[in-house]
Order: sequence, then C-alpha cells, then structure tokens
Amino acid sequence: MNAYYLKKAKDNMPDCAGGTRYSDDIVELIADERAHLGVGVKPLGKNRESFVTGDRFVLDFGEHCVGILSFQLTHVQSYLDAPVCLRLKFGEIPYEIDTDFKNHRGELISSWLSEEIIYVDFPGKVTLPRRYAFRYLEVEILKTRQPVKLTDFAVHKSTSADERKMQPLPAGTDPLLVSIDSVAAKTLAECMQEVYEDGPKRDHRLWIGDLRLQALTDSCLFQNHKLVKHCLYLFAACQKDGQYLPGCLYDKPELFYDEGMGITDYALLYAVTLCDYYTYSKDMETTLDLYPVAKKQVELAASLHDEKGIITFLDGWSSFIDWAEGLKTTTAVEGVYLYTLEKMAELAEAIGKKEDAGEYRAALQKTRECAYKNLFDPQKNTFCNVYDNNQYSVQAQVWMILGGVVEGEEAWTILTQCLSNDDYIQPVTPYMHHYVVEAMIRIGRMEEALDYIKNYWGGMVQAGADTFWEVYVPGNPTLTPYGNLLLHSWCHAWSCSPAYFIRTYFVTVQNSPMH
Amino acid sequence: MNAYYLKKAKDNMPDCAGGTRYSDDIVELIADERAHLGVGVKPLGKNRESFVTGDRFVLDFGEHCVGILSFQLTHVQSYLDAPVCLRLKFGEIPYEIDTDFKNHRGELISSWLSEEIIYVDFPGKVTLPRRYAFRYLEVEILKTRQPVKLTDFAVHKSTSADERKMQPLPAGTDPLLVSIDSVAAKTLAECMQEVYEDGPKRDHRLWIGDLRLQALTDSCLFQNHKLVKHCLYLFAACQKDGQYLPGCLYDKPELFYDEGMGITDYALLYAVTLCDYYTYSKDMETTLDLYPVAKKQVELAASLHDEKGIITFLDGWSSFIDWAEGLKTTTAVEGVYLYTLEKMAELAEAIGKKEDAGEYRAALQKTRECAYKNLFDPQKNTFCNVYDNNQYSVQAQVWMILGGVVEGEEAWTILTQCLSNDDYIQPVTPYMHHYVVEAMIRIGRMEEALDYIKNYWGGMVQAGADTFWEVYVPGNPTLTPYGNLLLHSWCHAWSCSPAYFIRTYFVTVQNSPMH
Repeated sequence: MNAYYLKKAKDNMPDCAGGTRYSDDIVELIADERAHLGVGVKPLGKNRESFVTGDRFVLDFGEHCVGILSFQLTHVQSYLDAPVCLRLKFGEIPYEIDTDFKNHRGELISSWLSEEIIYVDFPGKVTLPRRYAFRYLEVEILKTRQPVKLTDFAVHKSTSADERKMQPLPAGTDPLLVSIDSVAAKTLAECMQEVYEDGPKRDHRLWIGDLRLQALTDSCLFQNHKLVKHCLYLFAACQKDGQYLPGCLYDKPELFYDEGMGITDYALLYAVTLCDYYTYSKDMETTLDLYPVAKKQVELAASLHDEKGIITFLDGWSSFIDWAEGLKTTTAVEGVYLYTLEKMAELAEAIGKKEDAGEYRAALQKTRECAYKNLFDPQKNTFCNVYDNNQYSVQAQVWMILGGVVEGEEAWTILTQCLSNDDYIQPVTPYMHHYVVEAMIRIGRMEEALDYIKNYWGGMVQAGADTFWEVYVPGNPTLTPYGNLLLHSWCHAWSCSPAYFIRTYFVTVQNSPMH
Repeated sequence: MNAYYLKKAKDNMPDCAGGTRYSDDIVELIADERAHLGVGVKPLGKNRESFVTGDRFVLDFGEHCVGILSFQLTHVQSYLDAPVCLRLKFGEIPYEIDTDFKNHRGELISSWLSEEIIYVDFPGKVTLPRRYAFRYLEVEILKTRQPVKLTDFAVHKSTSADERKMQPLPAGTDPLLVSIDSVAAKTLAECMQEVYEDGPKRDHRLWIGDLRLQALTDSCLFQNHKLVKHCLYLFAACQKDGQYLPGCLYDKPELFYDEGMGITDYALLYAVTLCDYYTYSKDMETTLDLYPVAKKQVELAASLHDEKGIITFLDGWSSFIDWAEGLKTTTAVEGVYLYTLEKMAELAEAIGKKEDAGEYRAALQKTRECAYKNLFDPQKNTFCNVYDNNQYSVQAQVWMILGGVVEGEEAWTILTQCLSNDDYIQPVTPYMHHYVVEAMIRIGRMEEALDYIKNYWGGMVQAGADTFWEVYVPGNPTLTPYGNLLLHSWCHAWSCSPAYFIRTYFVTVQNSPMH
C-alpha cells in the first residue's frame, strides 16, 4: 500500500449519518400481475403488537432503507422466562419476501441473502449488529413460551449524502422526469456510505465503474466531493508498478484488494473520474496529487496497443464493459481508451500540463484513425469486434462514438441501426445504458436521449421501483446474470445516472454546479 | 415493588469479573460406554486454522466456562468478498455436541438450546452478543466463498465468586473428597453471576430453594456476603401483603416476578437463608432490615394450619420439595415449616427479639406434637402424607427429621427403612439429597452422611462431571423430568452443597468461618 495516499484517504473519511425510520405498517403480499415480478403488497393496518409462536407479519418501512434495525421485545403479561427465537427476513422488493430463500439456486453464494435467526434472552430493546438494505421486513416468531409484544421497529439509517443539499426540480417539470430524478437520487444516497458502494444489499464494494457514475451524479445532487476524494485516494493507495489499479477494493475493516483484479476499462475510468472530479470541485491540489496515478493507467493501456494501433490484452488482464452474455470487448475498450485520452488532454491543459496535453491529443488523433481503419466494417456500416470473433455489439458502437471515432449523422446512423437489432448484442446493465445515452448526447441527439431515459429508467419507475436496479432489460424482468433473482441488488449504484443527465442537459436547476 | 428494598438491592450489586480462557484444542467425539451418556472425547491436536465450506470441528476449553465468546475470522489469501456463515453449537457436556438439536423433543422450549447461525460481514474479531455456559464448542463453516482462518477462540468469563478467597483442603484429605469439593466449588462459582443463578445454561434465575444452598455453601468458599444481601433484598422488594414472596425472580433487564409464583417451602427457606446470612456475616443491620420479611413468611405458613395443627394449601399456592414424579408434599412442607421455626427462634434470640423467639419456640413444640400425632403411621413406623393420598416418601421422613419431630435412633430407623425401599418415593434432585445428608448430620450419623456424599456426588465425579448436574439418580443416567436430556443444566446450583458439608463437618480448613 502507498502510505501517503492511504493517509490522505483516511484524512478524508466521509461522515455517515441518517435519521431513524419507524414502521408499524403491516402489509400482505399478494399476487399481482402488474407488479414487479408478480408480487404486490396490500396494506393491512397497524402492527397488533402481541404475538405467539408461529405468528408472522411483514412490515413496510415505506422507503428503501440502509441501516441498523432495532425493535422492542417485551412481555405481554407473564415474564419471558425463556429465550425468544425470531426469524427476520429483509427484502428490498416484495418478491424477496415472497420467495423462500431455501429455493435459492444460482452462482452467487447464498450468504448474501438477508435473513437471520436470533435469540433474545431478556425483554428490552433489541439491536441487530449487521447493516441491512431493505424496505420490507418479515418477522416470524419461531419460539416463545409466553406471548411477546414487538413494537418500535426502527431503522437507524446510514448515508454520507446530505440530502438537504439536493435542489428540487423546478415546478412544471415533466412528472416522469421528476420521478426518475427522485428514484435516482434515492438510489445514489443509499449507496453513499463510507465509500460509494456498488450496492448496499450485496457487495458493499467500491468498484471504479460504479464510482465514475456515482461521483458524476453526486456532483449534480449532494456534491460530496470529500467522498469522491476519499475513494480516489483509496484506489491510489493500491497502485503497483506495471499494474492497473484494482477494479474494486474493500475498505472494511481496512483497505484491501486482491492481486490481479485489474480491469482495463475500469482502470481508464479511474482517470476519467479524476477528470470529472476536477471539473466539479476545481480542487487543484488533490488533482495534481492524483494526476500521476491517472496518467499511469493511460500509459499502461497505451502500451497494450499492437503494431496496427489497436488494443490487446495481456494474460490475466480483463475488461468489463457490460454483463451481456458472451460479449467480446476489445473494440469497446479501445473506445474507453480514446474517451479517456480526450478527458485527460482537457485535464492536462486545465492544470498546466501542456506537454502531456499535446501528447494525449496526438495519441487521440492517431488512435482514432487506427480504430476507424481497423475496426470499422464498411459492409455492415458498423464497428466490429475484429480482434475477437468478429462479434457485433451495441457496446462497440457506443464506445467508438464516445471515443470520437465517428461523429454526427454517421454516428447516429450506426447507433440506430444496431439498437434493437438482434444481430447485435444489446446493452443489459443500467451502467451500459448510461453510456448509450452519453453517446447520443455527444452527437447532439438530445431529444432521443431524453426519450431513451424516459423509456429505460422510466420503465423501472413504472414497474414500481423505489430505487433503480442492478439489471434491467425492458420486457425481460426475469433476466439475471446470476441464475437467480433473489441475489439481485435492487438498489444499485450504476443505475443512478439519469439524475446527472436530467440536471445537466434537460432541466435547469438553481445552483446546479453546471449552470 | 418496595422501593426501599429495591434501592438496597441495587446498592449491593455484586461485581462480575473473570479471566479469559483461550482454546485451540480440537477433540473428536467418540462412543465410549464408560463415559457419561456414552459420549467421550479424544484429543486431536491443535486447530489447523484454514477452513472451507463444510468443515467442522469441536474445541475443548478444558473447563466449564460461563461467558462471552470471541474469535478471529480472517481471510487466508483472497479477501472475504461475501459474508461467511457459521454454525456455533455450545455444550456443557460432550453428549450435547454429539446429539443433533433437531432431535429435541421434550417439555422445555427448545429456544434454550445453545446454537447460533451467524453471518460475518468483514474479517476481524467476532464477539457474540449472548452469554453461554459451555466447555465444548462445535464450529461448522456453513458458507464461505474463500477459505477462512479461524483463530483465537476465547471465552471472556464471568463470575461474582472471588476464587482466590477459597482455602485449599489440607494435604492428605481423601482425594475423592478433594474432587467433590473442587467440582462443587466450580459449580457454585459458575452459577454466581449478578444473582445466584440456578443454572447458567438455562433459566439464569434466582430461585429461593437454590439460593439457600448457594448462600450456605458460598459462606464456606468465597464468602460473597454482598451477593447474598443483594439477592435477599431483591426478594424483599417483591413482597406483597398477604402473599408469599415469589419462588423465583428475574433480575434482568430489571426486577420482575410473576404474580402467583409463591411456593410455600421456598418462602419459608427465604427466612432460613436470612438466618444463615446472620450466622455467617453477623451483619446485624441487614438482618434487622429484612427480619420483618422473613417473619411474614412464617406467619403466612402458620395461618395455613388447620384445627389439627397441620398445614394445608390455599388455592393457587404451591410447593416444591423435590422433582420426584407424583410426589405429594404436605407432610414434607410441614417439616420445612418446623425447620424454619427453629432457625427463626435462634435468629430472633440472637438479634434481641426475645418475644418473637418465645413465640417461635412455643409454636415449634406444639406443631411438632401435632405433626407426630397426625402424620406418623405407627404401623409402617414412618411418616405418611396423610393429607394427600396417604403417600409414603423419603422426602416426608427427611423433613420430619429436619423439623425435629423425631430424633436420634428412632429417626435413623425411620430413614434407613425408607431409603432404597421401592415402596417409598425416593429423592431425585441433588437439592433433595442435600436435605437427606443434612438430616443424617442432625441426628449425628456423620459417617453415614460422609458415605452418602461420597456415593452420591462422588458418583457424578466418577462419571466425569466437571460441574454437578441438575438431576442425578445413581444407575439411571437418562432420567429426566423434561422428557429430554438435551435441556438438562449440567452445572446446577443446587448441587453445590457438598463443599459446605465437607468444610463444615468433615475437614478442617484454615480460616473457615465455622472453625
């Protein structure tokens, strides 16, 4: 670990706080075709307070919560002369409560399923030691000798977002945009803990890909520059000669990352995140401090280019781009490299690194030419994953556009002929959909970009999302990369960016950093 | 609650402390006919530290422990990127570890079984929130994505006994007596927490019957008079006009008792406990303070006597005496009343309550006569439970002897012809066996009393007991009042009294309070 960067990270620990949310609202889960995954909820009134063995109820906290659960467990008449055993099951969405966790099959380890069996020895306040992400809580009284009273269910919430800093959208804004913006902001706030977590239900990790979108969106919402700084320094502390930064890291109980976790596109997006950080914070000192780390990522990617000027991968180095099944990524990663070069050229100029800026611009021009020459398929009039199976994907087009290899009308034609064309691999994650929108905006297709946001993120809102999901493909609600929906994160950081688009390009917000 | 007595109880809160016991000694459970309940242990060496899903091991802490468990859970190489799920099972004896808790059937609620399934989110020190009573700990790794290291298993022990105060038995003492004394002392120390608990594994409650034997034995071992005082005041705080003190109370999270929990013999033994307290502590102030409460218990029992001078029960008032199946108790309770009268007469004299002393002595003489006249069966030459089904029991004889209704050779003849005679209900609990020994000593049968101790408590020692058990009937190891052995308390307060007998009557110990 780099001790200097680690110290800087620690000096910039964000504060986590959050109010307390109480609930005594009991709901019933009901089959409902229109509800997300077919499970809806029906209010049943208030918690009746006195329970015996076998009783079970579901509480609705009214909003997605991240935090510590507490409640009061007391005797009704006779003292509790034996431990009381409870099962507590946490769900971000009704489907999780409705589905028996025993039915979990899939690739992710089931220790992520949020369910506890606890024993309470004495009446009084019970506070669970772990943090949960949930809106619905199922309580089952597994064993008690005497009737028990269960009251004062509360979540002591945690976030490093100061929600008071968020400006409301102006009166008269399209209600769907208001909803999308609000769900996006909630999603981001829930993921903002001591780092930008990817999902507060599962992983709790700081991934560069998510960080980039979170930091960008946060700049338009809560402006927690300290949190961005903390995360940038954490990654910087992990740098090793000749290696990419790790794609993700763990900050608890202390900074840790696994060797060989370098992800080419994520390493580049670290540099992009620093560029964004300077744009929004104008914090020259931190930017100069971290600039060498960003520069190193670009150099490592540059060194991977072959004699044709196209990126290749070293053994053990990986890429991400999107979760689409079977996706080949080299062409898209080439686009990420170009996108990064352009941002780095701007940053280098802004912070007085003229020479670097010149080199970045020269590399940008040359590499764009190589990319067009070698990766564009004139017959199909789209980019192709030439270096891997000649695969065609939307992802490749989007990143070639973002890399500036094609522009304007030509780019738009390429993009439109791929989107919704089954011959092309389609975007799956909200993360990738962000870059689709960004590509549209880059080539000036503002109206289409807005429609895309309304359709895609608006689709989740209309399906009842409180927070945006880890995976969403319209019309395919059961699609999962894990073999099981139970472990999806239903509040996932990389889905939060529509608030950035709305507030930067579509709605004028008072005191917005960009207006 | 009586606020004055409650305040006095709080002012006399005992301190709980205790060292830390570490273990990395792995054992294997083995079938062993000679071992208690057929389950023995074989040492397997040291904990190997690195584990994967499905691994399981049993740690032996080398002694019975009451306290909080902690351990270190860390990654071996790759970071723990998902929660680790462990099953932890606690056993006072190997049989509990060997028996699947799922097989529990019986009358006591299974929430007393000490087993937890826990999830650990981050590597580091894990401290469980509950207190356990155990020597053996089984750990099973239910779910982990990466190998885990489990080390530094420790029990942070708790007791209010200061074991440094205990005098060793002199060199040359019969080794069996030394063992019995040592197991008894350990049993008592483990049950001495913020109150004299009946059993640290199950109940954790302060019962008057147990308290009497614990306080008496403690006076010869650790002399924690403050703890006796605390417990006496707690009961005093529960007194209500026209009602016995409750037979038991709960001290956590605050003083509580269930209405209608009066137990006639236990209420009387409260008075006896106060008499003992004065004998050992000579604390006149406390004794005078609590004397009215003791006196009230005697008055209530006196008022239950019918025109023949024999005790009867009011509806809803109960008795205990022993757990022997189908036992009828009125004759034995009559004996407890007489026993109490005698002790109270002595106390009243000692603290200057001459008039009371006279009344107690008069009542004692008159009631002894009534008892002999009405409860003795000359044909069988033993006492009979005349008021309930004419049942014959050892319990009735023992308490008539302790009540002074018969003495000397006559008493010895009565006792011997009942013990081991199947026509008489036999003692079951170590608690009742205490009073058998006390009866023998009262009539001067010292040698037989010592043999009885060696046979009865020595039998548990020879069966491998670390601490004395809740229930023990020689030759009938599977006898249970609960329908299941899993919920027996294997370290039970009312078994601790042989140390009192040994140190008071059989071995001269330096600085003993009675020598």
